[in-house]
Amino acid sequence: MASQSPIVDIHTHVYPPSYVDLLKSRSAIPYIRSFPPSPDLRLVILPAEDTASTSRGRPVGPAYYDITEKIKFMDLHSIDISVISLANPWLDWVPESEAADAARRINDEVDAECARFPGRLFAFGTLPLSGGSEVIVREIERLKTLTYMRGVILGTTGLGKGLDDPELLPVFEALQNAKLAVFLHPHYGLPSQVWGERAGEYGHVLPLALGFPLETTIAVTRMILSGAFEKVPELQMILAHSGGTLPFLAGRIESCIEHDAHLKAKGRLGAGRKTVWEILKSNIYLDAVIYGEVGLKAAVQASGEDRVMFGTDHPFFPPLEEGTEKWASVETNYTAIKGALESSKEGMQGVLGSNAVRVLNLSI
Amino acid sequence: MASQSPIVDIHTHVYPPSYVDLLKSRSAIPYIRSFPPSPDLRLVILPAEDTASTSRGRPVGPAYYDITEKIKFMDLHSIDISVISLANPWLDWVPESEAADAARRINDEVDAECARFPGRLFAFGTLPLSGGSEVIVREIERLKTLTYMRGVILGTTGLGKGLDDPELLPVFEALQNAKLAVFLHPHYGLPSQVWGERAGEYGHVLPLALGFPLETTIAVTRMILSGAFEKVPELQMILAHSGGTLPFLAGRIESCIEHDAHLKAKGRLGAGRKTVWEILKSNIYLDAVIYGEVGLKAAVQASGEDRVMFGTDHPFFPPLEEGTEKWASVETNYTAIKGALESSKEGMQGVLGSNAVRVLNLSI
Repeated sequence: MASQSPIVDIHTHVYPPSYVDLLKSRSAIPYIRSFPPSPDLRLVILPAEDTASTSRGRPVGPAYYDITEKIKFMDLHSIDISVISLANPWLDWVPESEAADAARRINDEVDAECARFPGRLFAFGTLPLSGGSEVIVREIERLKTLTYMRGVILGTTGLGKGLDDPELLPVFEALQNAKLAVFLHPHYGLPSQVWGERAGEYGHVLPLALGFPLETTIAVTRMILSGAFEKVPELQMILAHSGGTLPFLAGRIESCIEHDAHLKAKGRLGAGRKTVWEILKSNIYLDAVIYGEVGLKAAVQASGEDRVMFGTDHPFFPPLEEGTEKWASVETNYTAIKGALESSKEGMQGVLGSNAVRVLNLSI
Repeated sequence: MASQSPIVDIHTHVYPPSYVDLLKSRSAIPYIRSFPPSPDLRLVILPAEDTASTSRGRPVGPAYYDITEKIKFMDLHSIDISVISLANPWLDWVPESEAADAARRINDEVDAECARFPGRLFAFGTLPLSGGSEVIVREIERLKTLTYMRGVILGTTGLGKGLDDPELLPVFEALQNAKLAVFLHPHYGLPSQVWGERAGEYGHVLPLALGFPLETTIAVTRMILSGAFEKVPELQMILAHSGGTLPFLAGRIESCIEHDAHLKAKGRLGAGRKTVWEILKSNIYLDAVIYGEVGLKAAVQASGEDRVMFGTDHPFFPPLEEGTEKWASVETNYTAIKGALESSKEGMQGVLGSNAVRVLNLSI
């Protein structure tokens, strides 16, 4: 472990045992079950995966629920620290009356997993979103007291109406005051009609490759338009998958805002408005899970080399070939970082780990 | 006019008078009408615009239908040549029995407008998509014989099932054989539920800033997954708005394809498959309508500085302030090109015009 320049993975998921038990008890998405004749358990989390195809969902092995597998994966890929988060769809689907308890149980369990490997694991907590604002804010207060919690992972639905919902502002304020970063992560994708009649022939590619990043882009753009980043000015959002497509579209979004007659008529274009570019450099951080130098360069240029952070998306995108050791999905992201930042040693070290140490205060 | 290094606008729309008459005769989208008490005509082309707000649709002035206004705009912004195209939604909505005639009439009218300013105007034709494959292929054959036609503009619905529809392959083959490029342009956006309950407060920003480029990204990715670029290997596609988000997401799309168990099981990952990166550098061209240096650099890196081409999206995104001369939307794109290509004079000249002259054969 190179203490001068650690490698930190901020996008890496866990399904702690109690969450796996919850999913096994269900028959609707999200659920875990076997599909006879195979005895192997499979995890189905997306509607588009829940249809007859040669591969419904994905196999669930120990990498999903055994934290020692995470450590082995980290060692294999020279990762010093991981900031683990519950995988989607989190607790979005839990009945209101069970939300508070489920969040406490999961967050305590994840914090305890971190404690087994002190200094190597930190975590983003999970919010009891279906419990209502008061329950959520109470859990945020509690998360501050847990040793390894450094933020929360959040989907795009908020309290049910998206992240531009004014009723979410107290939650964002509580997160700002607790200095807990929000790791914004997609799950719901886009309505399936956009993929067309032949989508099933393309496996999971369309919902995973496009649905996820486009969902994130829409969610954060709605937040920008709602004024959330002016109303909660110190809110810190880490966007999964390098912002979805926000770095690439920032110019178009900003141009459309400036040219919008309705926004102008409503006085929304005046002083006090943060531009998309300003928000990218003050409220937003991006992970480096983009699988290519072109995208990573855009992310670094849009947000700054001090605001982009390495991630793996483990345990997803494992090697397809049996017996392969290193994961191609991880190596592709390493290669992209090295290519995009070859002229800036400091920038490269920042993206690989020191940005995460600084932004998320990764010391015990 | 600097003949050594012309400036060419490949993304610039017209509503020839016969098309305006068609729209004035309608009461459903797309239509042109006035909203009393104002006598001014407004154009409504998107469902999201067709709701009560302070600005339904957009004002329709002579810039939309008077070709001499196009020339004035070109002179104002130092544009030597424009490749004009009918604006969305083209003839997608025309009844089957009228499609062939409408396309002939519009294409002849546009060709005649080009003839009024020889050497300064070329055009992308419009296909009679609702007329069926045979009618479409016949019009492609005819477009080859028109003096100023250099390609066709195409929406994302194809024959009604999207661009991954195998029944479109004869159309793509006819375009390939006629050496007519396809200018892929969005219109339909995304299902309105993704914008949320508050979308109306944001004017037209969400459908324009996100709906358009995300629609294009989905359409071209579906084409890639369908194998269209292997089956019609010389097909040349120019993607509006710098590819939607394809340059940024190419790495993720390619990674998701490589990791897809279904595609692997079906033998779709073997030799003969063109990667997304290969398609970007062999079948795809990108316009430079991206309003920012970050996005433009990604477009240039993804597709090559010899494959990106300046555009304005005229007459859309006009100055909001009365009395402004130069259009901010155009200047933003010029600035982005100059910033992204400051180290490559040849690349800058290419993007500003010489790529378009070469790719579209812009001489008479």
